[in-house]
Amino acid sequence: MLREVSQKRVLPFLGQITRGLSASALPEQVQYDPQTSSVPTPQPAPFSYVPPGRNHLFVPGPVNIHERVLRAMHVPGQNHRDPWFAQFFKDCLEESKLIYGTKEATPFIFSGTGTGGWEAALCNTLSPGDKVVCFRYGLFSHLWIDMMQRLGLDVQVVDRPWGEGADENTLEDILRKDTDKKIKAVAVVHNETTTGVTSDIAGCRKAMDAVNHPALLLVDGVSSIGALEFRMDDWRVDVAVTGSQKALSLPTGLAFVAASPKALEAMKSAKLKRVYYDFADMLRTNPSGNVPYTPSLAMLYGMRESIKMLREEGMENVFARHHRLGEGARRAVEGWGLQLLCKNPRWRSDSLTVVEVPEGVDSNKIVKTAYAKYDLSLGIGLAQINGKVFRIGHLGNMNELMLVSALAGAEMAMIDAGVPIKPGSGVGKAIEYWHQTSSVIKTRESLVQ
Amino acid sequence: MLREVSQKRVLPFLGQITRGLSASALPEQVQYDPQTSSVPTPQPAPFSYVPPGRNHLFVPGPVNIHERVLRAMHVPGQNHRDPWFAQFFKDCLEESKLIYGTKEATPFIFSGTGTGGWEAALCNTLSPGDKVVCFRYGLFSHLWIDMMQRLGLDVQVVDRPWGEGADENTLEDILRKDTDKKIKAVAVVHNETTTGVTSDIAGCRKAMDAVNHPALLLVDGVSSIGALEFRMDDWRVDVAVTGSQKALSLPTGLAFVAASPKALEAMKSAKLKRVYYDFADMLRTNPSGNVPYTPSLAMLYGMRESIKMLREEGMENVFARHHRLGEGARRAVEGWGLQLLCKNPRWRSDSLTVVEVPEGVDSNKIVKTAYAKYDLSLGIGLAQINGKVFRIGHLGNMNELMLVSALAGAEMAMIDAGVPIKPGSGVGKAIEYWHQTSSVIKTRESLVQ
Amino acid sequence: MLREVSQKRVLPFLGQITRGLSASALPEQVQYDPQTSSVPTPQPAPFSYVPPGRNHLFVPGPVNIHERVLRAMHVPGQNHRDPWFAQFFKDCLEESKLIYGTKEATPFIFSGTGTGGWEAALCNTLSPGDKVVCFRYGLFSHLWIDMMQRLGLDVQVVDRPWGEGADENTLEDILRKDTDKKIKAVAVVHNETTTGVTSDIAGCRKAMDAVNHPALLLVDGVSSIGALEFRMDDWRVDVAVTGSQKALSLPTGLAFVAASPKALEAMKSAKLKRVYYDFADMLRTNPSGNVPYTPSLAMLYGMRESIKMLREEGMENVFARHHRLGEGARRAVEGWGLQLLCKNPRWRSDSLTVVEVPEGVDSNKIVKTAYAKYDLSLGIGLAQINGKVFRIGHLGNMNELMLVSALAGAEMAMIDAGVPIKPGSGVGKAIEYWHQTSSVIKTRESLVQ
Amino acid sequence: MLREVSQKRVLPFLGQITRGLSASALPEQVQYDPQTSSVPTPQPAPFSYVPPGRNHLFVPGPVNIHERVLRAMHVPGQNHRDPWFAQFFKDCLEESKLIYGTKEATPFIFSGTGTGGWEAALCNTLSPGDKVVCFRYGLFSHLWIDMMQRLGLDVQVVDRPWGEGADENTLEDILRKDTDKKIKAVAVVHNETTTGVTSDIAGCRKAMDAVNHPALLLVDGVSSIGALEFRMDDWRVDVAVTGSQKALSLPTGLAFVAASPKALEAMKSAKLKRVYYDFADMLRTNPSGNVPYTPSLAMLYGMRESIKMLREEGMENVFARHHRLGEGARRAVEGWGLQLLCKNPRWRSDSLTVVEVPEGVDSNKIVKTAYAKYDLSLGIGLAQINGKVFRIGHLGNMNELMLVSALAGAEMAMIDAGVPIKPGSGVGKAIEYWHQTSSVIKTRESLVQ
Repeated sequence: MLREVSQKRVLPFLGQITRGLSASALPEQVQYDPQTSSVPTPQPAPFSYVPPGRNHLFVPGPVNIHERVLRAMHVPGQNHRDPWFAQFFKDCLEESKLIYGTKEATPFIFSGTGTGGWEAALCNTLSPGDKVVCFRYGLFSHLWIDMMQRLGLDVQVVDRPWGEGADENTLEDILRKDTDKKIKAVAVVHNETTTGVTSDIAGCRKAMDAVNHPALLLVDGVSSIGALEFRMDDWRVDVAVTGSQKALSLPTGLAFVAASPKALEAMKSAKLKRVYYDFADMLRTNPSGNVPYTPSLAMLYGMRESIKMLREEGMENVFARHHRLGEGARRAVEGWGLQLLCKNPRWRSDSLTVVEVPEGVDSNKIVKTAYAKYDLSLGIGLAQINGKVFRIGHLGNMNELMLVSALAGAEMAMIDAGVPIKPGSGVGKAIEYWHQTSSVIKTRESLVQ
Repeated sequence: MLREVSQKRVLPFLGQITRGLSASALPEQVQYDPQTSSVPTPQPAPFSYVPPGRNHLFVPGPVNIHERVLRAMHVPGQNHRDPWFAQFFKDCLEESKLIYGTKEATPFIFSGTGTGGWEAALCNTLSPGDKVVCFRYGLFSHLWIDMMQRLGLDVQVVDRPWGEGADENTLEDILRKDTDKKIKAVAVVHNETTTGVTSDIAGCRKAMDAVNHPALLLVDGVSSIGALEFRMDDWRVDVAVTGSQKALSLPTGLAFVAASPKALEAMKSAKLKRVYYDFADMLRTNPSGNVPYTPSLAMLYGMRESIKMLREEGMENVFARHHRLGEGARRAVEGWGLQLLCKNPRWRSDSLTVVEVPEGVDSNKIVKTAYAKYDLSLGIGLAQINGKVFRIGHLGNMNELMLVSALAGAEMAMIDAGVPIKPGSGVGKAIEYWHQTSSVIKTRESLVQ
Repeated sequence: MLREVSQKRVLPFLGQITRGLSASALPEQVQYDPQTSSVPTPQPAPFSYVPPGRNHLFVPGPVNIHERVLRAMHVPGQNHRDPWFAQFFKDCLEESKLIYGTKEATPFIFSGTGTGGWEAALCNTLSPGDKVVCFRYGLFSHLWIDMMQRLGLDVQVVDRPWGEGADENTLEDILRKDTDKKIKAVAVVHNETTTGVTSDIAGCRKAMDAVNHPALLLVDGVSSIGALEFRMDDWRVDVAVTGSQKALSLPTGLAFVAASPKALEAMKSAKLKRVYYDFADMLRTNPSGNVPYTPSLAMLYGMRESIKMLREEGMENVFARHHRLGEGARRAVEGWGLQLLCKNPRWRSDSLTVVEVPEGVDSNKIVKTAYAKYDLSLGIGLAQINGKVFRIGHLGNMNELMLVSALAGAEMAMIDAGVPIKPGSGVGKAIEYWHQTSSVIKTRESLVQ
Repeated sequence: MLREVSQKRVLPFLGQITRGLSASALPEQVQYDPQTSSVPTPQPAPFSYVPPGRNHLFVPGPVNIHERVLRAMHVPGQNHRDPWFAQFFKDCLEESKLIYGTKEATPFIFSGTGTGGWEAALCNTLSPGDKVVCFRYGLFSHLWIDMMQRLGLDVQVVDRPWGEGADENTLEDILRKDTDKKIKAVAVVHNETTTGVTSDIAGCRKAMDAVNHPALLLVDGVSSIGALEFRMDDWRVDVAVTGSQKALSLPTGLAFVAASPKALEAMKSAKLKRVYYDFADMLRTNPSGNVPYTPSLAMLYGMRESIKMLREEGMENVFARHHRLGEGARRAVEGWGLQLLCKNPRWRSDSLTVVEVPEGVDSNKIVKTAYAKYDLSLGIGLAQINGKVFRIGHLGNMNELMLVSALAGAEMAMIDAGVPIKPGSGVGKAIEYWHQTSSVIKTRESLVQ
C-alpha cells in the first residue's frame, strides 16, 4: 500500500515505461528513451572516434582507475587452485576490512555489483514477510526498497524529499511504536548518489539505541565506503555494502559486503532463498583461503593495490581529501550563484555534488554539451529530478587538479546552455579554497621547506 | 530424500567438512583443508616469488587470456551513461549470440560467474516446488542440483557413474512416465568439468521429443560453449549458461545466459524470487542499449574482442581446433599407457582430458610436483575422484604448441611421482597426430605453397 | 671564435660544472646540482609513494600518452623477422610522412632520441669543416650547435635574445655575403623548447631563396612536428627531425627523421663518419620493409596508433587545437597580469607557454611547490633563465580541460610562492576564450544540434 | 686488404645487393629480397589476422617479455625532471652492474640498440687509424668489423669457420708479434648469434695477459650478458655491450654499455667523433641522477623489474637455467639424429641452438612452415649459412616447458619439410634430461617434500 502511494508521488512519470513488467528497478537511462527524450537515435558506432586528450570522467561511479591499479590488473590468466592463492585471498579479505572501519565484521567479496551486494545483505539476514524500515530519498534507495518488496519483505517506506537525508526522529518514532519488535531491519542508504546527500548513520544508530530496538542496521555504502567516514564497528552496522567501481576505483565487477557477528547470527534463521549470494558457502570456504566459485583474479589484484593505496594515504587523510574535494566543488557552486540540491549542510556529500540549474534550463543539455564539446562526463539528474540537476562525482581516485577540469568544463557547458555564469567564477572559488587548505604530499616535504 | 541418498553414495567423505552448514556447494579446494590433506600451511606470501618464464596454465578454466583481449581490456575508466554506450552494448549482446549458435534466443550478460548463470536459468523459469530432472555425474552437476534443492525445486536426480554422460534412454523413460507433465525442466551439464565428459544435448532433446514432453531444456554450457559444438536453436535449448573465464578466455566475472522464446514465456509465470539475476530488468533496458545496474566496461571490451577472434576463426574451425587439441591429448594418454576416466568414446570431451593414474599413485602429488618443479598448473581430481585422476584443460585460447607444454610437463611430473612413463612417449604421439592433421593458419598460405 | 664569445655571453654560469669536460651538452638539470641549488639530497626512494589521483604532466615533453597508444604498445614480444613485419614497417614509414607534411621526403625511424635525430641530420649530409649557419636562442639550439662543433663542423652562430626567434633578415644578409657558397647548411630550431618561441621556417626559406642560396635547410622540429604547422615540401626543408615523446605522445625512444631528395643527394658526398645513424643502411633495407638492426615493435605499434589518431583528427584540426590550447594559456597569463618570455606575437609557440615571474620570485619555487602540493609537473626555466620563468607544455595528447588543470595548479603554486594572483583570474580568461571558440567533437554533433 | 679478402671468402653472394652503397651492414633479412628468395610478395596486411593461442617466440632476440615486466612498463607518461627521478635513475645504473658481473665498471644506458652500443664502445675508446684485432665467425662479428672499418679503424680481421669460436692461440700470436703495441683493442663477440657459438672471454684475456699486451678488451655480450656467465671484473673486460631485447627480455630500445676504469682513461685521448653515444655527457650528468637527453621511463621501469627478477633468481641460477635449457635443446638435436653447427662442445651456446639440416633440405622451408602452420617463430640461417641451419633461441625469460614447444614445433615442421624425424624423438630426449636435472622452484619446496 505504502509502496503504491509513495511510488505514485515520487515517480509518477515512470509508469509508462514499466508497463507490463514490475515497476521496479528503473534504470538511470530512462531519459534516453526515444519516446521521452530529445536524444536522437545513435549513429552507427558513434564511439568509434576517440578524440585526442583524456576523457574527463566525473560521474559518481564508475570512476577513474589509477595507473597503479590498471598495472596490477594486467594479468594473463592464473589458476586460483594453485597453492599461492589461499594466503593471497585471505589477505584480500583481511585487507578489505580497512574500508569498512571494522575489526569485528566478516568481509565477503562477490563477483557482482552493488545491486548484488544489496541482495546479499537482505537474503542472508531476513525471512519472507519480515518487516524492514527504509528511507527513500532518491533513485537508489527506491531501487533497494523495490528489491526488498520483490523478495517478499514487508517494507515500511519513509519518503523524504529528494535532497534531504535520513530523519533520525522519524526513525526513532517508528521504532518506538514497534513495541513487539516486528521490525527486523533498518535499511539506510548512506550516501544517496541521486541527490548528493550523506545520511548520518551514527545518528540512525543513536535513534535505534534510544529505544533499545534490536533490528539489524543494514547500510548501503556504495558511494561512501572508501571515501567518506565509515565506522562499521563504532556505529554497529550489521551489514555494509559497496561496489568496486566506486571509491575503490576499480572496474565494475565486485560486490563488497561485510557482516557483523549479529548479522551472521541472524543468518542462521534467515529464510530468504539464496545460493549465489549466500554467506554460508563463503563462510565454509573463505577461512581457509578458498572460494565456492571462481574468483576474478584480475579484480582481486586490483583491489589489493587499491586498498594498499588507501592504507598508504591513511583513511583519515582519505576522508579529509574527499572533504576538500567536496568543499571545493561547493564553493564553485556558490561562485556560480547556483544552489545545491541538498540544502541542509549536515547532509552534503563529499562523494558527489548535485547542482540545481536555474528554472528554464535543461540540465540534460548541459551534460550532453559537456560531453559533446569538452569530452567531460558528468552525471545527469535521475528520475524525478531529471533535467533539473546535474551531478559531479569526485570520489575515489581523484585530486584537486582533476576536479578543476570538471568545474571548468561545467562552467563552459552551462554558458552554452544559457546559464549566466561568469567564466572563472566557480573555478576561482574552488582554487582559492584548495590553496588555503592545501598540504604537501607525503615524501615531498623536502621540496618546500 | 533422493538427495540424501545420492549424496551419501557419491560424496561420503565430504560429510565432516560441511558440518553445521548446508552440505551443499562443496568447493573444489577440499583437498587443501589442513585437516584432510598433506599440503602444509602456506608460507607467508608464498606467491611473492614469480619465477622467470611463463606459468603454464592448463586447468579447465580460468584459461589463458589472449594478448589481444588483455589489450582491449586495459581501459582507465569510462561512463556507461555516455551516449556511445547504447550501440556498443547492443552490439555486445548481438555478438554474444555467436557462441550459443542461436538467432532466436535472447542473450543476457551479468556481472557474476557461471554459478550465477545457473541461478538465472532456474529462477527466471521455474517456481517453488517445480519438478526438475537432472543427471549427476560430477561435482558441477552435483552443485547445480544442490542449488536447485536450496531454491526449493523438487529435483529428480539421475546418478550416473563419474566418467559417463547423460543417458538418453533413462531420460526418455522418466519423461514417458511423467504422464501429467509435472516435470517442468530437464537440466543437463553439457560438459562435466570434473570428469571430462561431454553429454549429447541433441540426444537429450531427441529423448524429450520422442515422448513429446513440454519440459524446458536447461543446459550448463560453462565448459563447452565457445569451444565445443553448441547449437541452441537446432537443439531447442531453452536456457544456456556459460562463464567468461572458460572458452571465451576472459578473466572471471561475467555470466553469459541465453533464453529461448519458450523460456521467456515461462518467465511470466515463474515464481522463484529473483532480483539481481532477473531477466525482466534486462529485458526492459537492454533493447535500448541500457542496463539495470553498472556493467563492467573492461569485461565487455574484452568479450567483444574475444568473440571477434572466434568470428575471425569461424566457429566450425573453433570446434575443429578443440577436437584436434583433445584428440592430441588423448593420443598422449594412450602413448603413456594410461586410461581416460571417460571410457566411452562418444562422451570424450574436447575441452579437457581427465587422466586416471595407476593404482598406488596419488594424482595430487603429480599436480603439486608439476607446479612446484615446472610451473605447470594442472587440475586436480575433485571430490570422490580426488587423488585418482588429474585434469588437463585445453579449451579457449589454446594451440597445439601450448598444449605440448602440458603434456611434456605431465610426463615429467608423473615420472617424479613414480608413474613408469617413457619420456616422449605421450608427447610424441600427440605430435604425430597434430602433424598429420595440421593445416596452415589463415593468411599464411603463401608461405608454404 | 664566435662560439667562445657567444658562449661566454649567454651561458656564463655554466662554466664551473663543465670543468674538465667539453663545455657542451649541458643538461637541463643543472639547477638540481647540490652545489648550486637548494634542492636537498634526495630521500631514499622518494618516489616510492605514488599518491591518489593523477599526476598532472605539463612539461613540453615527455607528454601524456593516450590510452589508445598505451594499449597498442602492450605486446609480449614478437619477431620482426616473421613475414608480417615487412608490410607493417613499410606502412609505418609511409604513415610517418603525415607529420612532416611531405610526400617527397624519405622518412627514417631510429631507436634513439631527438638528439640522435640531430646527429643523423648532420652526419648524413655534411663533411668535416663544412660551414653551417645556426641561430642560437635557447638551450636546445645551443646544444645542437655544440654537437655541430664537436662533429667538426664550422658553425656560424647567430645569437638572438632568448625569447626571440630566427631573424630572417640576418640570415639573408649572411647568405648574401657567402658569395662562393661556402655555407653548406642553414640549421634552425623550429620551436625552441627553452623559450616558447616558434621561428618562421617559411620565412627562413624565403630568405634563402631571396639570394638563391643552395645550402641545405636542416630543421629541428622536435617540439613542433605533429603539433604545429609543418610543411616540409612547401618549405623545402631538407632534413626534419623529431622525437617520439613530443607531439606524437609516445614514450621516449624513437627519433624520427625525414630527408628531402636534395639531402639524399648530399649524402653521397657527405664525409662525416656515421654508422648507427647512417641513412644508407636504412635506404638499403627499408624499401623492402626491412631494418638494419632490431626495431622496437612496441614503439612502432604505438607510433602507428598515434599517427592514426592524428589522421582521424586531421592535421589542420591538430594545428587548430594546439593554437586554441596555446592561446588559452596566453590568455591566462594575461589574466594573471604576467608576461610571456616571448614578447613578439609572431613567434609565440602553441606547443608550450613560457611565463616570466615577477622580480624577486624564484620560478623554481613555483615548479617545486606545484609538484609537492598539487602533483603538477611544470617545466623549469633552463640555463640562463633558470629561476626567472616556468614552462607549461601543452603539446600532443592534450585537450582544454586537461590544460585547465595546469593553469589552476600554476595559480595555486604562484600564490604559494608569493606572486600576487587573484584565484581564477587566469583560468577564467582561458575558459572564456575556449568557450567562445569551442566546437563539437566529431561524431558527437547529434548531441547538441 | 684483409677485409676485401675475407669478405669475398665468407660473404660472396652479398655483393650484388650492396651495389652502390657500402658493402657493410648487411641485414639479416637478405633472404627476403624479392630477387633472391622464394618468399612471395607480402599480401596486403598479412598480419591483420592474429590467430588463437600464443605465438611461440624462439628467435635469439627479441625474446618473450615477462608479464611482470610488461606491467611495470605500462605507464602513461611522467616527467624525468621531477625530483623522484634522480635516485631512481642512480638505482637503475647501479642495478645494471649485476648483469655484467662488475663492481668496478661504470654502466651506461642509451636509448638505442646493440648496434649503438657497439658504436659507443668503439668511439669512446679509440682514435681514427687505431689498430683493432677482431675475430669474424658470423654475421654479427662481421657487422661489428664493418662498423670499425667505416669509423676509420684499422681492423685486423681473424676469420674463423662459422661454427667455431675465438681462437686464443691465434690471438696470442698476433699480440706477441705486435711488439710496438700498435694494437689498441681486441674486440670479441662473446656469443655469436649467427652460429650458436660462445667464445671464451676468460681465455682471450689469458692470451692477452700471456704476452702482457695493453690493448683494451671490447666485448659484444649482446646475446650473452644476463644469460651466460659474464665476469667483467674477473676477465678485465674494458667495454661490454648488450641490448634490452636479449637476455633482459625487454622490448628493443636500450643499449647497455659498461666501461672499465681503463676504458674511461682511454676515453680521454680517444679521437673518434661522438656526441649521441658519448660517455662524457653521461659521466657529467649520471652521477647526480641526471641524463643528457630524455630517457625512456617505460624502458627503465621495465629494466628495473627485469633485473629485479634476475636478482631474485640469482645470477648463478640464471646461468644454470640457461645451461639446462641449452643442454635440453642439444639433447633434442641428438635425438633427431642431426648435427649442431657448432661441433666443438667447448663453444656450444646456452643462449641459442643452431641446427644443421640434412643435405637437400632447405632450412628456410622449416622456418616458414613452423610459422605458417604452428605459429612458431624460429630463427633462419643468416648470410652464408642461409638455408643450411635454423636457430632456436632460448635466452632470457624462458623455462623448460616453453622450450618444449619450440622443440615439438621444430619436429613437426622438419617432418613437413622432409627431414626424416620420428615424432617425439627429440622432445623425449629433452624431457628426459630436464626431468633428471630438475629442481624445485624457490618458495615451492613445501609442496614436494
